[in-house]
Amino acid sequence: MTEKIPPDSVGLVEPQDMIVAAEFPLACGQSLPGYTLRYECYGQLNARRSNAILICHALSGDHHAAGYHRPDDRKPGWWDNMIGPGKPIDTRRFFVVCSNFLGSCKGSTGPASINPATGEPWGLDFPMVTVPDWVRTQVALSDHLGIEQWAAIIGGSLGGMQVLQWAIDYPERLRHAVVIAAAPKLSAQNIGFNEVCRQAILGDPNFHGGRYYQQGPGPRQGLALARMIGHITYLSDDAMGQKFGRETRGGKALSYGFDVDFEVESYLRYQGQRFVDQFDANSYLYITKALDYFDPAASHGGDLVATVARAKAQFLVISFSSDWRFAPERSREIVQALFRAGLEVSYAEIQSRHGHDSFLLPIPQYHRVMGAYLERIAKEQGL
Amino acid sequence: MTEKIPPDSVGLVEPQDMIVAAEFPLACGQSLPGYTLRYECYGQLNARRSNAILICHALSGDHHAAGYHRPDDRKPGWWDNMIGPGKPIDTRRFFVVCSNFLGSCKGSTGPASINPATGEPWGLDFPMVTVPDWVRTQVALSDHLGIEQWAAIIGGSLGGMQVLQWAIDYPERLRHAVVIAAAPKLSAQNIGFNEVCRQAILGDPNFHGGRYYQQGPGPRQGLALARMIGHITYLSDDAMGQKFGRETRGGKALSYGFDVDFEVESYLRYQGQRFVDQFDANSYLYITKALDYFDPAASHGGDLVATVARAKAQFLVISFSSDWRFAPERSREIVQALFRAGLEVSYAEIQSRHGHDSFLLPIPQYHRVMGAYLERIAKEQGL
Repeated sequence: MTEKIPPDSVGLVEPQDMIVAAEFPLACGQSLPGYTLRYECYGQLNARRSNAILICHALSGDHHAAGYHRPDDRKPGWWDNMIGPGKPIDTRRFFVVCSNFLGSCKGSTGPASINPATGEPWGLDFPMVTVPDWVRTQVALSDHLGIEQWAAIIGGSLGGMQVLQWAIDYPERLRHAVVIAAAPKLSAQNIGFNEVCRQAILGDPNFHGGRYYQQGPGPRQGLALARMIGHITYLSDDAMGQKFGRETRGGKALSYGFDVDFEVESYLRYQGQRFVDQFDANSYLYITKALDYFDPAASHGGDLVATVARAKAQFLVISFSSDWRFAPERSREIVQALFRAGLEVSYAEIQSRHGHDSFLLPIPQYHRVMGAYLERIAKEQGL
Repeated sequence: MTEKIPPDSVGLVEPQDMIVAAEFPLACGQSLPGYTLRYECYGQLNARRSNAILICHALSGDHHAAGYHRPDDRKPGWWDNMIGPGKPIDTRRFFVVCSNFLGSCKGSTGPASINPATGEPWGLDFPMVTVPDWVRTQVALSDHLGIEQWAAIIGGSLGGMQVLQWAIDYPERLRHAVVIAAAPKLSAQNIGFNEVCRQAILGDPNFHGGRYYQQGPGPRQGLALARMIGHITYLSDDAMGQKFGRETRGGKALSYGFDVDFEVESYLRYQGQRFVDQFDANSYLYITKALDYFDPAASHGGDLVATVARAKAQFLVISFSSDWRFAPERSREIVQALFRAGLEVSYAEIQSRHGHDSFLLPIPQYHRVMGAYLERIAKEQGL
């Protein structure tokens, strides 16, 4: 390990693939002719297999939650501040697994993968995947790893929704559910933003009906726009004000034209362009649809209390005061339903200026709450 | 007048043009070789010329604030619920004027107008126009109409910003300033949304550097996206929830594809498409820039109190509880600055679910506040 890798890191890590050859039926009615699930593990599974924690990632996340792939990586995994030796999810005690969901473009099977029936990338022929499907792939992964029951399943945003789905669909297979910055379903405004992002991609003339892998540069403009819109909704008005205010780029005078005037414009353009090099537009389409479709109570006549009543896990629900994408009120809907269903639930609303993005940030109060809860789990399991 | 036109309407109205042949220097340093300002008038100017009210419109608005152009018009002007005989801005007492601002596409000179130097539409050669420029064109209109002092100048959103600029730049020429759902300047989030809208237009392959009048269909996709984004920000999360919830279009089952699933998607697509037929993409670019650039305190070292201290008008400031584009806090910044500058100011925060769009809606409490304030002005002027 080089000097660059800090001592509280899980260090160098390597992704692994679970390859499933059997046909996998999906909630949409179609099925996949097998699939690959890419995942990473940190820490050691104990002999009793009682110290396993599963992490569920959000829209643009992946299986690489902590550590480094190469000694010269500029950045560690996306939740490295939360996972590692001595960190809230302490890898000296816990065996931590994070898997990339189907439909993504980070290693698990998705629209950019090869459709064995045609030998070409799936594109929009890829079947729609939903949160319950993702949970079922992770159940297969649990079996593959020999984990009968997770000590906890933890996720933020779309990952938090996945945790909720787990607790409802497989009540015996997790002891604790940690649902962060999530919602029991998307609001019309949430769907509206997702739809604008999809229209930006679908309407890009380089989209070619999703078959852009074979021709041209792909819908770079549309995907960049989608990311810019997303980015505004991940931050709070206050956080953007603190970060950029109305500062002009480089302190220059107003251009009186359509080039960049303000720092915030420069930042958003940069974020959009950077994302295009890292993410597949088709995956963005599929994942935003999985978000829109997430509504576990729908199959119980819209009754969230009756829906979550199937769960047996103990819950920790966390929200952030300035999150307007999935505001604290949305988390409180989950908390109230769990409470009415007679489940054990702790709730923390963390004061933060950073909007929805807070769930990724090392906010001291947030890390203290997580650390204390994980400590409790460790004690309970005698770790 | 046909039966269709209601008795509390100003009835059939006709736009008028003020044509200025002289060169008009702009804040950006360039100038226009003359310009046309389109406007409408309702009611009668009294002999003392003391009953005139000027209305300032918002981003996609125009001079057609009240009444009908033809007996078979499907809809009246954009603020017909506010302006008319017996309405809060009562045309039996007041002479009401509304003008379309420069850069728009509704009759006043803008990027779709012919550049006399080339005989072609201006496109992006049109000089940048700003809120102070608009005020100066309205000062010229005041002179043209023989109105030395407006009894009140009234506007919502970008129109409210224009009212604030009027009060600062021409303190003697208005007695009352009514600033509705506005802000003293845009936040980084506001600018961010505007920038995404502009990028959608500028990046549309049919934009052709703004010269699309001469070729092709124009940036319809980009403008529709801009409108969709705008529309989400005009409504509150709550209002969208009330209006659409998660209802699927026509109550159908989920498509598990990328066609419309939810009513909100259908609504946003429709709004986007409809707007494209009514508005010019270049105008959208210029007007969002005028919004971003609005910052009257910038020329006073950022000191809003010192800036508004030049004003002499009495103020009514109105905000709406669920407006998150220009939230009540932004109106309170204006109120506090006016108060500290020793000006007379009334403030009303109207409870409303309808978000920023509230300023256009006939909300009873809002209309009562407006009616009472206008009544006071009428008494003051002995009308």
